[in-house]
Amino acid sequence: MIRRLVLDVLKPHKPDVIELSEALSKLDGIEGINIIIYEIDQQVENAKVIIVGNGIDFENIKKKIEEMGATIHSVDEVAAGKIIVEEVKTPQDRFARM
Amino acid sequence: MIRRLVLDVLKPHKPDVIELSEALSKLDGIEGINIIIYEIDQQVENAKVIIVGNGIDFENIKKKIEEMGATIHSVDEVAAGKIIVEEVKTPQDRFARM
Amino acid sequence: MIRRLVLDVLKPHKPDVIELSEALSKLDGIEGINIIIYEIDQQVENAKVIIVGNGIDFENIKKKIEEMGATIHSVDEVAAGKIIVEEVKTPQDRFARM
Amino acid sequence: MIRRLVLDVLKPHKPDVIELSEALSKLDGIEGINIIIYEIDQQVENAKVIIVGNGIDFENIKKKIEEMGATIHSVDEVAAGKIIVEEVKTPQDRFARM
Amino acid sequence: MIRRLVLDVLKPHKPDVIELSEALSKLDGIEGINIIIYEIDQQVENAKVIIVGNGIDFENIKKKIEEMGATIHSVDEVAAGKIIVEEVKTPQDRFARM
Amino acid sequence: MIRRLVLDVLKPHKPDVIELSEALSKLDGIEGINIIIYEIDQQVENAKVIIVGNGIDFENIKKKIEEMGATIHSVDEVAAGKIIVEEVKTPQDRFARM
Amino acid sequence: MIRRLVLDVLKPHKPDVIELSEALSKLDGIEGINIIIYEIDQQVENAKVIIVGNGIDFENIKKKIEEMGATIHSVDEVAAGKIIVEEVKTPQDRFARM
Repeated sequence: MIRRLVLDVLKPHKPDVIELSEALSKLDGIEGINIIIYEIDQQVENAKVIIVGNGIDFENIKKKIEEMGATIHSVDEVAAGKIIVEEVKTPQDRFARM
Repeated sequence: MIRRLVLDVLKPHKPDVIELSEALSKLDGIEGINIIIYEIDQQVENAKVIIVGNGIDFENIKKKIEEMGATIHSVDEVAAGKIIVEEVKTPQDRFARM
Repeated sequence: MIRRLVLDVLKPHKPDVIELSEALSKLDGIEGINIIIYEIDQQVENAKVIIVGNGIDFENIKKKIEEMGATIHSVDEVAAGKIIVEEVKTPQDRFARM
Repeated sequence: MIRRLVLDVLKPHKPDVIELSEALSKLDGIEGINIIIYEIDQQVENAKVIIVGNGIDFENIKKKIEEMGATIHSVDEVAAGKIIVEEVKTPQDRFARM
Repeated sequence: MIRRLVLDVLKPHKPDVIELSEALSKLDGIEGINIIIYEIDQQVENAKVIIVGNGIDFENIKKKIEEMGATIHSVDEVAAGKIIVEEVKTPQDRFARM
Repeated sequence: MIRRLVLDVLKPHKPDVIELSEALSKLDGIEGINIIIYEIDQQVENAKVIIVGNGIDFENIKKKIEEMGATIHSVDEVAAGKIIVEEVKTPQDRFARM
Repeated sequence: MIRRLVLDVLKPHKPDVIELSEALSKLDGIEGINIIIYEIDQQVENAKVIIVGNGIDFENIKKKIEEMGATIHSVDEVAAGKIIVEEVKTPQDRFARM
């Protein structure tokens, strides 16, 4: 059971971030959505999309995102199971500046 | 259902930030407002506006902000759904210094 | 309803910070005050004043501050509404070192 | 009794991170899984896998990971016992940037 | 009503920090004291003194500190009112490295 | 009564970190173990071992670690007593980068 | 009433940190002890000793530390009173990197 997703999404300016978040938050199994616009170009916006729920259907999310003219660039984090497990930092983390 | 918005707003010195925050906090569906003035020029002020509520009506917010002579420069974050989802940091975050 | 204010205040050495904080904390609608002296010159002190309450009357605060020989240099943050909304960090924050 | 594992895993693009996390979260003794993709190459992805449970069977985890075409590159942290013990920082930590 | 004070105090080596903290903690209206020695010279010690209470009498504190041969160099923070208000960070903070 | 230990341990690759943590977590008086591998060489691994319990027997721990072919390089932190006391930072800390 | 002490202690290798922490934790009025070894030389070890209790007797602590061949190099922090007061950061803190 998928509990949380962090997606990197490329979207056109229209539909806007308000519409995209409302559309995603209405899908089955979704408890909440957070969308952060972290870069704006002339044609597109880069958005970090965090989705929390009980039994998130990834294909459903993907379909809705594409229906709105956007594309999933990458899936950066997935939490699955009975509980939402958070990241644990270790000295082996290669991604220095986190 | 929109639960939280982070807006970048450009406002004239008058009406002041006290008046703007009071006006926004009285709108339907709003539980609280935080306005931070992060830059002041001779003519205008740059404000970061955080709005929390149950069912925030973005068009309503926008109308009130414009009525007060200010403009929304960008929508930087939207949280929607039954719960307010917070950001999750990942190594893929391109915006290094956050 | 104003719930929290962050003010940048310029004050003379007398009345001192103890007197100023006691005077402000007695005003109607005030639950608590925090005053931080962050710069001291020969003639004046720069103070960051944080005011928390239920229905803070800004004009009242301003009047009391001026009665004590001090002036409000800027209003840096205002929280209004039923709940006190805290700041949310986003990658669009232009004020880098916060 | 193993309570938490942090693994560094090398995986092919397919099966994807959604499938891998769902498969691992269904194993006996697992309460939750978090998978973070921290590097993507043409052929493979580097993933940090955090597994929380009551009595995690490492051999079972390893078998499932390998069934899905991935390999455990290293075991970076293990928590065992009645409670999950978190890291404690000390001045002797040689791994400076943690 | 003063609830918390942060003082910068210059003290001789004797009486020592144990005696000073015990003496201050016994004054009326004081709930607790924290004294941090942050610099030691041949003759004197620089101490940061944090005082928490319900109705702290600053003149009383000052008198006791001076009785023990020490002097208040500055009053760096005052919290007053029904609740103890903590500092709130804003982009206007001029004191960069806090 | 020893409540928490932080040990720097040098271990061979075999027995692995899973076996070591399971063996230590079964000793009397142990509530939980966390082992972090922070450096791997061809012959050995450097591990930070955190042990939490009610009445930890250090000699017992040491014996078990040595039985498994590993050695305690140093004892970096010890918490003893009825409660587990955490570190307190002070300006006198000479170990700058903690 | 002393509630918490932070001491900088110079100790010989023997008795070791386990023995020192057990001995101190058994003294009257002590609830818990944390000893961090932050530097090891050929002859001595530098230890940061944090002591929490209800009515800590400093002379008693000092006597026990000296009985074990160690010496108190400095008293870096003292908390006294009915409650344990924690440090509060201010822009006047001269000890920059804390």
